[in-house]
Amino acid sequence: MPVVANHKVGQAVSDVIDSRHQALLPDYVWGDGSPKGVRQRAAEEMMATFRVAEKLGAGIVSGFTGSPIWSFVAGYPALKPAQITEAFKQFASQWNPILDVARDTGVRFACEVHPGQMAFDLYSSEVVLDALNGREEFGFTFDPSHLHWQGVDPVEFLRRFPDRIYHVHIKDAVLSLNGRTGVLAGYWPSGDPKRGWQFRSPGRGGIDWEAIIRTLNEIGYEGPLAIDWHDPGMDREFGAAEAFKFVRQLDFDPPTRSPQVFRG
Amino acid sequence: MPVVANHKVGQAVSDVIDSRHQALLPDYVWGDGSPKGVRQRAAEEMMATFRVAEKLGAGIVSGFTGSPIWSFVAGYPALKPAQITEAFKQFASQWNPILDVARDTGVRFACEVHPGQMAFDLYSSEVVLDALNGREEFGFTFDPSHLHWQGVDPVEFLRRFPDRIYHVHIKDAVLSLNGRTGVLAGYWPSGDPKRGWQFRSPGRGGIDWEAIIRTLNEIGYEGPLAIDWHDPGMDREFGAAEAFKFVRQLDFDPPTRSPQVFRG
Amino acid sequence: MPVVANHKVGQAVSDVIDSRHQALLPDYVWGDGSPKGVRQRAAEEMMATFRVAEKLGAGIVSGFTGSPIWSFVAGYPALKPAQITEAFKQFASQWNPILDVARDTGVRFACEVHPGQMAFDLYSSEVVLDALNGREEFGFTFDPSHLHWQGVDPVEFLRRFPDRIYHVHIKDAVLSLNGRTGVLAGYWPSGDPKRGWQFRSPGRGGIDWEAIIRTLNEIGYEGPLAIDWHDPGMDREFGAAEAFKFVRQLDFDPPTRSPQVFRG
Amino acid sequence: MPVVANHKVGQAVSDVIDSRHQALLPDYVWGDGSPKGVRQRAAEEMMATFRVAEKLGAGIVSGFTGSPIWSFVAGYPALKPAQITEAFKQFASQWNPILDVARDTGVRFACEVHPGQMAFDLYSSEVVLDALNGREEFGFTFDPSHLHWQGVDPVEFLRRFPDRIYHVHIKDAVLSLNGRTGVLAGYWPSGDPKRGWQFRSPGRGGIDWEAIIRTLNEIGYEGPLAIDWHDPGMDREFGAAEAFKFVRQLDFDPPTRSPQVFRG
Amino acid sequence: MPVVANHKVGQAVSDVIDSRHQALLPDYVWGDGSPKGVRQRAAEEMMATFRVAEKLGAGIVSGFTGSPIWSFVAGYPALKPAQITEAFKQFASQWNPILDVARDTGVRFACEVHPGQMAFDLYSSEVVLDALNGREEFGFTFDPSHLHWQGVDPVEFLRRFPDRIYHVHIKDAVLSLNGRTGVLAGYWPSGDPKRGWQFRSPGRGGIDWEAIIRTLNEIGYEGPLAIDWHDPGMDREFGAAEAFKFVRQLDFDPPTRSPQVFRG
Amino acid sequence: MPVVANHKVGQAVSDVIDSRHQALLPDYVWGDGSPKGVRQRAAEEMMATFRVAEKLGAGIVSGFTGSPIWSFVAGYPALKPAQITEAFKQFASQWNPILDVARDTGVRFACEVHPGQMAFDLYSSEVVLDALNGREEFGFTFDPSHLHWQGVDPVEFLRRFPDRIYHVHIKDAVLSLNGRTGVLAGYWPSGDPKRGWQFRSPGRGGIDWEAIIRTLNEIGYEGPLAIDWHDPGMDREFGAAEAFKFVRQLDFDPPTRSPQVFRG
Repeated sequence: MPVVANHKVGQAVSDVIDSRHQALLPDYVWGDGSPKGVRQRAAEEMMATFRVAEKLGAGIVSGFTGSPIWSFVAGYPALKPAQITEAFKQFASQWNPILDVARDTGVRFACEVHPGQMAFDLYSSEVVLDALNGREEFGFTFDPSHLHWQGVDPVEFLRRFPDRIYHVHIKDAVLSLNGRTGVLAGYWPSGDPKRGWQFRSPGRGGIDWEAIIRTLNEIGYEGPLAIDWHDPGMDREFGAAEAFKFVRQLDFDPPTRSPQVFRG
Repeated sequence: MPVVANHKVGQAVSDVIDSRHQALLPDYVWGDGSPKGVRQRAAEEMMATFRVAEKLGAGIVSGFTGSPIWSFVAGYPALKPAQITEAFKQFASQWNPILDVARDTGVRFACEVHPGQMAFDLYSSEVVLDALNGREEFGFTFDPSHLHWQGVDPVEFLRRFPDRIYHVHIKDAVLSLNGRTGVLAGYWPSGDPKRGWQFRSPGRGGIDWEAIIRTLNEIGYEGPLAIDWHDPGMDREFGAAEAFKFVRQLDFDPPTRSPQVFRG
Repeated sequence: MPVVANHKVGQAVSDVIDSRHQALLPDYVWGDGSPKGVRQRAAEEMMATFRVAEKLGAGIVSGFTGSPIWSFVAGYPALKPAQITEAFKQFASQWNPILDVARDTGVRFACEVHPGQMAFDLYSSEVVLDALNGREEFGFTFDPSHLHWQGVDPVEFLRRFPDRIYHVHIKDAVLSLNGRTGVLAGYWPSGDPKRGWQFRSPGRGGIDWEAIIRTLNEIGYEGPLAIDWHDPGMDREFGAAEAFKFVRQLDFDPPTRSPQVFRG
Repeated sequence: MPVVANHKVGQAVSDVIDSRHQALLPDYVWGDGSPKGVRQRAAEEMMATFRVAEKLGAGIVSGFTGSPIWSFVAGYPALKPAQITEAFKQFASQWNPILDVARDTGVRFACEVHPGQMAFDLYSSEVVLDALNGREEFGFTFDPSHLHWQGVDPVEFLRRFPDRIYHVHIKDAVLSLNGRTGVLAGYWPSGDPKRGWQFRSPGRGGIDWEAIIRTLNEIGYEGPLAIDWHDPGMDREFGAAEAFKFVRQLDFDPPTRSPQVFRG
Repeated sequence: MPVVANHKVGQAVSDVIDSRHQALLPDYVWGDGSPKGVRQRAAEEMMATFRVAEKLGAGIVSGFTGSPIWSFVAGYPALKPAQITEAFKQFASQWNPILDVARDTGVRFACEVHPGQMAFDLYSSEVVLDALNGREEFGFTFDPSHLHWQGVDPVEFLRRFPDRIYHVHIKDAVLSLNGRTGVLAGYWPSGDPKRGWQFRSPGRGGIDWEAIIRTLNEIGYEGPLAIDWHDPGMDREFGAAEAFKFVRQLDFDPPTRSPQVFRG
Repeated sequence: MPVVANHKVGQAVSDVIDSRHQALLPDYVWGDGSPKGVRQRAAEEMMATFRVAEKLGAGIVSGFTGSPIWSFVAGYPALKPAQITEAFKQFASQWNPILDVARDTGVRFACEVHPGQMAFDLYSSEVVLDALNGREEFGFTFDPSHLHWQGVDPVEFLRRFPDRIYHVHIKDAVLSLNGRTGVLAGYWPSGDPKRGWQFRSPGRGGIDWEAIIRTLNEIGYEGPLAIDWHDPGMDREFGAAEAFKFVRQLDFDPPTRSPQVFRG
């Protein structure tokens, strides 16, 4: 069953809109660029995405959500607790109508856990799920590369949300800390050695894929393993072939018989 | 020689102004809250700060600068290189007039390297220095706690900018990664166990103070070691006494004779 | 409020009785040494212990429980799941009458999580609590030294059972793995360098006391910090004085004001 | 030259017999299940095993020994030194007659170093060898998976007993400590994520096979590398094929010429 | 374009000559073995090497230089700074005439950074380059195996001298510290387990080849990756085939398009 | 009982004599500086040292030995095994007459295990002891700082030579590897940040003093703990006072009762 991705438009639904978003959006969504209008049109476009997905026979839409409070995370000045609570209410009010369409079309939304989104690590994903009352249309696109550099163990994420893993990205990353680089990666583009981490072709970074595939097997994930290839130091054609081979090798069969188990 | 601190107003000079800043600023700086006016009045207030510092006999003003592009760091969508370059030009045009006053008053500015600022790690501090053409009025408030959780070695920072360390904060931090927490610390306030790092009373965190004091001695830093105490798990009175004792113990004398040295 | 300890008799309640237990028990409990009789008399002696504790004004009895299946743990051949379930039923039937006395006397039982007991690590403590239906008379004596060498993080234990920490032992341990030693410590007595871990006077081992005291403060533990001193390489008198000083230094005050908190 | 394995019956020779052993043993060894009789019949069956091995042309019998004091290891209450000494005497008296048959048949016994046995780590293997006066019929089945989780370096084991490695198992294991799991693995069956270690298909765990094969070459081991496959997260057929390939790749040739060596 | 190697004769140019050198040198260079004469003839032979290289169409001569002060490094008594300065002057006066020939022939010298040479780690390579006034004929043969056991990160070396990497050796090494071995490797020949490090067939040691090949790509190195095979525990024929395959796999293509980059 | 130290003269007994030694030696030992004569006079001076020690009531002379083959260690070209064997014979013939005087005076020699000496790590100390047939006059001055940076565990050294620890230096060192520095420390003097390790005032480096003092207690060492203070970043007066206090604190009492022990 195919998966439809629409990250860029989803980003505009809850973001603080600025000039960067114009490059992300089709003209008819950007329109006159007034923030309120952009967010509204982006929401409608996301609803349309679910309807198209249904027609295509896709069970999953994968994408971003944007965040009204991203600049608060790790920044200064901090939001007050009441302001965070308010932001989550706003987020829910923006996404619930879209998720209603998801429910009606029978297509689920796989929100990618990623910096710049409301859900960007394990505990923020818990909050987002709570803010949406755990409605079943909403789950996650699991991409371990975004968790790895934050110090979050991707296996812990899978065990925490075993029934909300709706889509999986195979993307690797490596920490490149040497005392001078930092995990925030500064102003430096992908591949710049001044960054404290880099994306890598799958299997060439720091991620424990062995543990991840075993945990995906344990929680019964049966969707695709989608290669989201990005490696600033490798030729794309070479990398595509290698990554395909890597995923084939990774995806071994779990045992067919369930072990007899003591559950305390 | 005393040091004057004015972090909150400095933050408003280059920030994207929003509702959070009202709580940071005096009424006469906030005014009607229009972003352009706030930034202008904040800049004037910073100039006034340098003039007051001169009258008080203070050689250093320590503070924040704000940043027009903080939400870009580690976020999505990324700025284009040209936009970053433009932001640094804007930053320089906002701060050069203030630094002119600093020069005229003979008081230097010790910008605190801190998340939410233009300079928040080692390489971003290089860029900021370049954007200001390395003018001597501008240096850094070195606070290792903000570097530690980013994976930046505070000793490397000191060795990179030996003649730009204008002020020093003694503040400790500890990583509390356990597979579920992350370094971005999420929406969680200081002390919450869901965070991947915490501030700690000096000497009780993960910072190698031994290496820092030795490097400060080597680069000839002779300013104060200012305790910036914050520890969400300790009583303030207890912590103040302990921190004072810690710094006294830390600040041992370097040798008076220079060793005879081969310099390659 | 004092704490009464009765480890040796508790051990006999659920253990497989053999010749080693004679040295642990008073003659009137050992009696003729027939296993069933020993276990029965040990149970009665534990009931008496609670009644004495009540008279002494002690709120807590700390002790061991023994285990009918200790030799199964890490051994061979493995028990079948049904046999484990059966063992827990037996354990509950042996301890529920004792805990009824605890309830009636208003004294709680703080079972020490320790090798040789039913509860010896985090997950086995969960099972024991379930087997007893979480009755409130039953909680734990937390001794981090027994968790440390097993690879269990004592802080995780505290966070898992915040309202079941009824008593705390201050006891340290250090891993002494060098490629030839092993964590099971073999046949070697305390202090023998052939062991892969050793007990140590508090503060001289590998335990992160800083993290433990902060977590005890967070969960609101207000009972005693009882020094359970054992160090095979240090004179007892010297160690007693040092350990007392260590605990005094460790036990700093948490903040009195609660922070304003966002709970997702 | 083939190897004959008889682990289950060997286990019963020195074990404390209980209900678990019935499932391990043929009816004619279990008989009426009285411990003394079981142990006696198990010993006789082991003697018969050596005689059969001789007829089959096998040079090695691999197996377990059982242990009368396994529950003492890491448990409570501890045995006194005299009781341990006594247990080793008993062990020797149980196995010497079997080893006499081994000697007479020209077949050696490769005792698997494994939890639940008298020899389960490096130093316990030393004691067992001493208890048998180092008789040549007795050596070890080296299986690094059982040493790895105990923190014992398999290479150190090989270097300690270079002429007693009579058989080799290729079996991998991985530590899965996450702060909550522990190395004793609790009551949890293979594959359960509550365990602090797991068996893994060879090459997919934490064992340094590169170092092991080099050391086996150095000590001149020339016997088989027997795959003892166990992996709770992998299909058996898939794993068998992969493991076979892994061992073929692992088993590279050492140099044929001896280097000219200084021996201090 | 081929590379000519002449390590042994180069070693004699600046070394303190003793009996060991006789085995390194052709008879006509050793001559009567008087140190001054040996060094002079070795220098002439190196000049001839460059002239031959030119005729062969080789652009690079790779080799050693020797060192008059090797025994000072890590030894006792230490040289005084003036003596070190003097040694570098002597070194320059010995090599400048040879490098004049290199310049005239258009062939560059790729000095191997290696214990026993003037340049043996990152900072000593800086000094050597300075002593030769950075003349362009002189660069380095980069062999990460010699840096690895010294604790120097090969990637840092490449980033420090991006335009002086004239030749590359693919050679691996592994630390084998176990508490008793040491990094100086004592009197023990290659392969002896008493050493704290060993050479290994490429890909089987501790070197991060992934990071090295990426950095070589970034700095634009386009010369050969020469396998300098040495592995005391592996058959040479087996190793040669494997190493060839390893290098083929390692040498992937970098991207053809340059990313758009912000340079601070 | 006092200890007499004579490191500089001892160094000249077995060293390859060069200009550096003139600064180490009294004029009457240096004489005309001809290597053979210097070595001979140094040997006689060492004999005189033992005779003086006897008169002073000192039981130990601590010192260096020098080494004819130091430049071989970690250097190039390597000695052949026969040459190493020859060097040890020469070493023995130079020191046996001195040790005869030691024997006659009842004063033992505590050779400091140190780079630049024949014995500089654990295994080289074994060889030296063998070369002298283990004569009892010869043992070691144990200084963990020289072992630490080589990767040798000081505790392993103590356990290997429990009855040959004749003197102990309290001196600390810290590794300062940052990717660019290396353990050989290059041409850089003490304190230079280009070095991969530094000496430190005791307790401020990387040495596990806790483990060392316990092992010294276990092996029954009863001699002095001599502070050999060197710290390039600390004032000497400050350091002397601190070091004295550190050693007093370190030197706690072991238990007076021996535990009842099982020795396998």
